[in-house]
Order: sequence, then structure tokens, then C-alpha cells
Amino acid sequence: MTVTTVAAYAAPAPKAPLERTTVPRRPVGEHDVLIDIKYAGICHSDIHQARNGWGEGIFPMVPGHEIAGVVAEVGPGVTKFEVGDRVGVGCMVDSCRTCENCLAGLEQYCSEGNVGTYNAVGKDGEPTYGGYSTHVVVDENYTLRIPEGIALDEAAPLLCAGITTYSPLAHWKAGPGKKVAIVGLGGLGHMGVKIAHALGAEVTVLSQTLRKEADGLKLGADHYFATSDPETFQQLKGSFDLIVSTVSAPLPLDAYLALLKTDGAMVNVGAPEEPVSLNLFSVIGGRKTLAGSGIGGIRETQEMLDFCAQHSLGAEIELIRADQINEAYERVLASDVRYRFVIDTATI
Amino acid sequence: MTVTTVAAYAAPAPKAPLERTTVPRRPVGEHDVLIDIKYAGICHSDIHQARNGWGEGIFPMVPGHEIAGVVAEVGPGVTKFEVGDRVGVGCMVDSCRTCENCLAGLEQYCSEGNVGTYNAVGKDGEPTYGGYSTHVVVDENYTLRIPEGIALDEAAPLLCAGITTYSPLAHWKAGPGKKVAIVGLGGLGHMGVKIAHALGAEVTVLSQTLRKEADGLKLGADHYFATSDPETFQQLKGSFDLIVSTVSAPLPLDAYLALLKTDGAMVNVGAPEEPVSLNLFSVIGGRKTLAGSGIGGIRETQEMLDFCAQHSLGAEIELIRADQINEAYERVLASDVRYRFVIDTATI
Repeated sequence: MTVTTVAAYAAPAPKAPLERTTVPRRPVGEHDVLIDIKYAGICHSDIHQARNGWGEGIFPMVPGHEIAGVVAEVGPGVTKFEVGDRVGVGCMVDSCRTCENCLAGLEQYCSEGNVGTYNAVGKDGEPTYGGYSTHVVVDENYTLRIPEGIALDEAAPLLCAGITTYSPLAHWKAGPGKKVAIVGLGGLGHMGVKIAHALGAEVTVLSQTLRKEADGLKLGADHYFATSDPETFQQLKGSFDLIVSTVSAPLPLDAYLALLKTDGAMVNVGAPEEPVSLNLFSVIGGRKTLAGSGIGGIRETQEMLDFCAQHSLGAEIELIRADQINEAYERVLASDVRYRFVIDTATI
Repeated sequence: MTVTTVAAYAAPAPKAPLERTTVPRRPVGEHDVLIDIKYAGICHSDIHQARNGWGEGIFPMVPGHEIAGVVAEVGPGVTKFEVGDRVGVGCMVDSCRTCENCLAGLEQYCSEGNVGTYNAVGKDGEPTYGGYSTHVVVDENYTLRIPEGIALDEAAPLLCAGITTYSPLAHWKAGPGKKVAIVGLGGLGHMGVKIAHALGAEVTVLSQTLRKEADGLKLGADHYFATSDPETFQQLKGSFDLIVSTVSAPLPLDAYLALLKTDGAMVNVGAPEEPVSLNLFSVIGGRKTLAGSGIGGIRETQEMLDFCAQHSLGAEIELIRADQINEAYERVLASDVRYRFVIDTATI
């Protein structure tokens, strides 16, 4: 087998609009699967990276780490998948597999750094290209099974938005009897609400305004408060066991920490680039935790997909054509999406 | 029984030197014990409060929340103590007893606010006066038993410095196989080292310089590093399961969080008044926790005293006369104490 050239949408250079192009995909190796990509979600970080927001971007860049598709070919050593299987790929396509974190199923924290699905360099020394494309070749150990019961287009965003919220909710034990707040009702937040509700927690959305209140309640929230209203912080003082913040704007952390009960945790899955300010007495009183969480490991991502299928939880999506990607980027930046754009890759 | 007047050392006004005076003690009530104070430790926060560092101080102020003594009289309803028992009093002498936190044995986080041993107002509406005194009247439920096996003078500092470090070490499970760093080798830090070592953890001291290295190793540390040496932060990257920071200076938190393993926790028991700066990506990578902890509950304080007695852990102290308190304050501020001043209250 030789390198294949496949159609893709790529940013040719930092800040340039994405355009149709072709990129190489490696031959299907011993343990690889070739995936016929059906859908790719647009994550906020795609925009950041395509615009070189973190620097050191590899261009041309094909974003996309919320991939759903069908197995089209398998390598001779593949045991987990067969042609025709419904599969997904998330934020990483490889890791060292031998460090303490990888061995613990926490490949996202691989000590060597995991290999990102795009804008990274694979073990073969070649750049990785993401899901805004017709096909991708991925090691079976970094490929997830998408169970029947979730439509592929609604499943795609689970590979990042789903696992990023599921992981902290599971790790910090959201469930019956627990009061959980989700900060921000965007792509991540709306999945956080659905998952926390399905886990049995009492869910509160903390959003800047009440603009999306009806949506929030429909998605599974029990309560909805506007953080632009100072009264919210008075009323909810000492209320929550767990706060999951999905926003990347700098928050007044001391005010949010005051909303936790004793032993409560505020977990950040979104974060601003710049440092934030924190008074440490906000965690000393009430033995509180300020923590972070990044996506999830492969095993946990599969657990999340199985959980979502069991509870019929897909993302709320707006399906777009590939030629609408640049417009969609602008709308994401304007918070004008309910709640995830998903590219129909048949239109690439 | 009537109000008794007892000798004490008090700050008559903010920033005034402490001087000998008398203060009232309430009659011994149904559930009270009258304690003949033998020793009182000098905590850094005594100085801060006596100088009105947090404002709203009640003057005259008798500091002292590291109290060790002997029961001299008991109220008719007292069941836990008898005259002659060796007892201690820590940072609080009462709390609401009915909130979720009190019922959970976390009286230090009482929702109504616990009643501080000094510089507070008791349920009788009268100011509380601390341990720099010959006697104190305390409810038996906020009185601790000091087991045989620890000298009373070395036990006094356990009531604050001991429990403040024991509680996070126990809560975040310091023990065999765990790598624990103690930041700062002062009154709190030296007890942190002793306790973490006795719990079976591998203990590293992170101190500004190597000045106290020999002491640290003698106290039970396995390793000792200077934080003034940038090499320390390179060498120890990803090393610790738990970091307990006892310092009140503002630390570069991102650098310290980088010293944690995946899922590690940095717990602050000391904190600066002013806010600190934090990049939230420091907790997102490796799912890390930045937490706080304040003293400990009554039940846990007893557990700590029993643990310390079992392992023969007292504080390292320098015994002083009452007329040396003001000089001792200056030496504490100059970090010139190894490791706790304890007042012999017979000299008051």
C-alpha cells in the first residue's frame, strides 16, 4: 500500500481562510484502520489553531478532532474493528504507550506528549491532518467505537466536547444527590448539561445571560442563572458540590469558589491564555479544590460513548457544507451556534 | 460560680507591644472545663492578629490558640474529662453544632463561622481571650485530650501547627509509596515533615535555601531542595503526589504545580493576603488540583494528637518566659525560631 492523497479543507497559512485541497494519508499499517469520514465537528480550538493562536502551527493545517465515520479498510493485525464498523477519532491518534500515564489509560496526559489528531507530528515523522477530510488512517488503539443508538453526525462532537465534560463529571463523581453547575452553555457546556443530568445530578447552568435559558432547561438543567446578575452569586453561595467551567474567558475565580460547598471542586476544562487572579483563602475556607481536566483517555472515551448511546445523548448540531466552514468559524466566535457545527464531509 | 479574673498577656491596642494584664473568664458552666494553662505556643497568626493585620481586631487581645494544660475544675454535666486530665485547646472553642459541616466533624468550616479561641465573640456575647494566660474556660466538646507520651510543652503547638499539617496529609492520603513535598520549614512545615514521615511517605522539603537542611533531614525528610535554585524546578518536575505549602509568601504557583505528577494535589495551608497569579493550564495538564485546608475538626484534632503520641511526635520548641513574648514576635517575623516559641505560662 502506498500513500494516498485525499480531499480536505485546510488553512494554507496562519489566519488564511480554509480552502479545499488534498493531503497525504499514510498507508494502512499492520494495526491501522482506514476511516471513511462522514462527519467532523468544529471545535473552538480548531479556530484558535488554524489562526495560529498558540504559535508553532504546522501549515497547511487540516483541523478536526471530532471525527465520526465508517471503517473502510483494516490492517492485517487489526483485531478490534472490521470494515463497516461505525467509529470515531478524538483529539489524539497516538501516544508513547509506555509511560505511567499511558499505562493508566490516561493517554491524554502522556509524559512524552500525545500525538494530536492534527497540527502534530506522528511517530512516522509526518504531520498529522485532522477530520475536515474524506478519509483518515488511525491506529486501532486510538480509534473508538460509536455504538448504534447515536446518529453519526450527533456523535462526532462527543469525541471532544463529550469526553471533555464527561471525564471531570465522572472523576469528581457527579451523580444522584450531587449539585453540579456547568459554566457556559456552548459546545462543551451543552454536553456537560446533558451528561450531568443523565448521571443523575441536579444541574444548574451558569451563563452570562438568560438568553439560552429555555434551551438549557430542555437539555436537562434543573436551574439556570445569569452570571451577569450579582444576585446570582449571593443566592447560590455554598450551593455546589462540583462546578465545571467550560469557558475560556477569565472568570472571577474567588466568586465562583464561594459557590462551592465544603470539599467542593471547581474544574476548569476551558481556560484563558493569560493568567488569572486567585485569593488562596478562597480554597482554604471549606477545603475547596480548584482543578483542571483535559479531554479523557481512550478507555474513558469509549466508556463515554457507551454511556451516551445508552442514554441517547448526542450533541445538538447544525450540519453544514464544507464551503460554509469559514462562515461557521465567524459564527462560533460570535457565539452564534446551537450548539456545534458539524461538517458533512461528503461535501468536501 | 462567678466570673473570674485571670492573669494574661495582651495587646492593649493594635500594634502596641503585649503587656501583662488581667482578663475575665466566664463561670464554669454545665459542660465546661476550667483549664490550668501550662504552655501556649506562639503562632505566626498571633502576631498578625495582635497587630490588627486582618482588621476588626478586638482589643485588648490575648492571643494564643496552641494551649496545653491540666483540667482544674469541671462543670456538673462534663463527661469527657476529669480534674487532672492533660488537655489542649486549639483554634476554636465553639461552633453552631448543627450545620452540615459541624455534623460532619468539620467544625472548622462551620457555616455560621466557628468561635475563635481569641479575637472572637462567644455565644455569651463576650469576647474570647486566648492562651497567653493562666486559665481558660472551654466547653468540653472543644477540648482535646493530650495523651501521655508527649510532653505538654511540645504538645501545645500541635493544636494548630500539628493539625494544620496533619489534616491535609491525611485527607490527601500521604502514606507509603507517596511522594510528598513540604514547602517551608517553619512552625507548620517542621510538623508537616515529622507527620508525613511518620505516615510513611517519602518526604521532600522545599525551602528557600539549604540553611536548615541538616535539621530537615533530622526531622524526617528524605530530600531537601532550595527553591531559590532554578535547577530545583527542572529536576523535580512531575515528582510529587502531594505538595503542602505552609508559606504565606506568594509563590509562583505554575512552577510548583509543574512539580506534581498526574492527579497530584498542591494544598495551601498558608496563604498571602493578596491574590496570586495562576495559569489554569497548569491544572488542566495532568488533571491537577490546587486546594486549600484550614486547621482540622475536633475529631480529627484528637486523631492527630493520638497519632503524634503513638509516634512520639512533639514540636521542636524554644521555651520562653512571658516577658519575652514581644522579642519572640520579632524573631518569628525574622524567621529566627527553630521551630516554635512556647510560653511557659507560669511566668505570666
